[in-house]
Amino acid sequence: MRLKVVLVEPIYEGNVGSIARVMKNFGFSDLVLVNPCILGDFGCAMASHANDLLDEAEIFDRLEDAIKGADLVVGSSGVTALKTDEHLRVPALGPKKLATKFHGTEGTVALLLGREDNGLSREELKVCDMVVTVPTSQDYPIMNISHAAAVILYELSHVDEGEIVLANRESRDRLIDHLRSALVESQYYPHKLEKTMLMLKRILGRAELTDREVQTLHGVIRSLRWGAKGSEE
Amino acid sequence: MRLKVVLVEPIYEGNVGSIARVMKNFGFSDLVLVNPCILGDFGCAMASHANDLLDEAEIFDRLEDAIKGADLVVGSSGVTALKTDEHLRVPALGPKKLATKFHGTEGTVALLLGREDNGLSREELKVCDMVVTVPTSQDYPIMNISHAAAVILYELSHVDEGEIVLANRESRDRLIDHLRSALVESQYYPHKLEKTMLMLKRILGRAELTDREVQTLHGVIRSLRWGAKGSEE
Repeated sequence: MRLKVVLVEPIYEGNVGSIARVMKNFGFSDLVLVNPCILGDFGCAMASHANDLLDEAEIFDRLEDAIKGADLVVGSSGVTALKTDEHLRVPALGPKKLATKFHGTEGTVALLLGREDNGLSREELKVCDMVVTVPTSQDYPIMNISHAAAVILYELSHVDEGEIVLANRESRDRLIDHLRSALVESQYYPHKLEKTMLMLKRILGRAELTDREVQTLHGVIRSLRWGAKGSEE
Repeated sequence: MRLKVVLVEPIYEGNVGSIARVMKNFGFSDLVLVNPCILGDFGCAMASHANDLLDEAEIFDRLEDAIKGADLVVGSSGVTALKTDEHLRVPALGPKKLATKFHGTEGTVALLLGREDNGLSREELKVCDMVVTVPTSQDYPIMNISHAAAVILYELSHVDEGEIVLANRESRDRLIDHLRSALVESQYYPHKLEKTMLMLKRILGRAELTDREVQTLHGVIRSLRWGAKGSEE
């Protein structure tokens, strides 16, 4: 899935720069501007190391030219809560749901982000095949456009959270056994032993230990029981 | 779970204001500042309708005072990728994983966001019980701090994406039956009927229709087959 981010008549150059930066943070590079504000020093400063996206941005006068070639057009809207004009804005998908829609699909998607003050117009929303809204508090639903972009692009990004490789069960069981034998040797209260062991097992389970941490804990137990010297034997 | 957002020595007032805004967007209100920059007009402008959070922010000289009363301290870091000092930063949780950790728990969590240039110091990271990192592209991993905050707070927010209530199976089946009988009546190619019906069923399935949309489609089919007039009978 190739994503184009289309800013429709952005007013503040700082937002354009910020959106370029967050696009690059999440591995996207196709920026399209429709009738944008002038981009000066502040916009470039906000883009930081994503100035290449600003340099290579496609610029159009009309939205219809900007979305030519897109297989799907997604409009972002911050005002579903207002419940005006239901056909245009409802049902709006959350960013998570939008991401699952695109999972495993190919094609070009244009994500439309509207003006900072008035968003996308009715006519522009009519062009959209889907509408996405970031779920917000009723107290203050209107997000800065670059922050809404950050959340949507975060969800659409192919960058993985990365896996924390957990120690396997045998490795954890050996740690528990080590703890138990150390406690028995130290003459821990026999009538409390089983309950305590269960609690320790639960604590270590919730902690989701890595292999490295398990090894360190073995050393800690050895040291506590037999002194640091014994732990090196 | 109560969340305090602790900005450690923020340098730019615009970021402080932006973070206040995105906090309020996601339903959080406890802002804590440690030895912050001066907050002037630009910071207030970026906070927009979240100026109350700036007014009510707690301000401390020292981090240890700022996190007093927190049951868990989470540090954010943008530099896990550098693999320096593994004990301090590894394993770092992604925001989704962090959110699942807190799901259904009570207590006060302090989320530490560091300086825009150098993040949290080694000493500050040592205070943290967990470390969170937003997964980013290797090409440009360093996010603007307010955008990283937006993504983390979005995940930690209790605001739901909201459910789109789908039309139930019977309702969809009646629509499919309606389509079939309309096609049969219109003498659609009999040898293609079953394959076409299957395709239509799949398309309508993927579209995840609401009840309202199902009703509208019934009207569309009636109108196509018998004319708008017939559709009103």
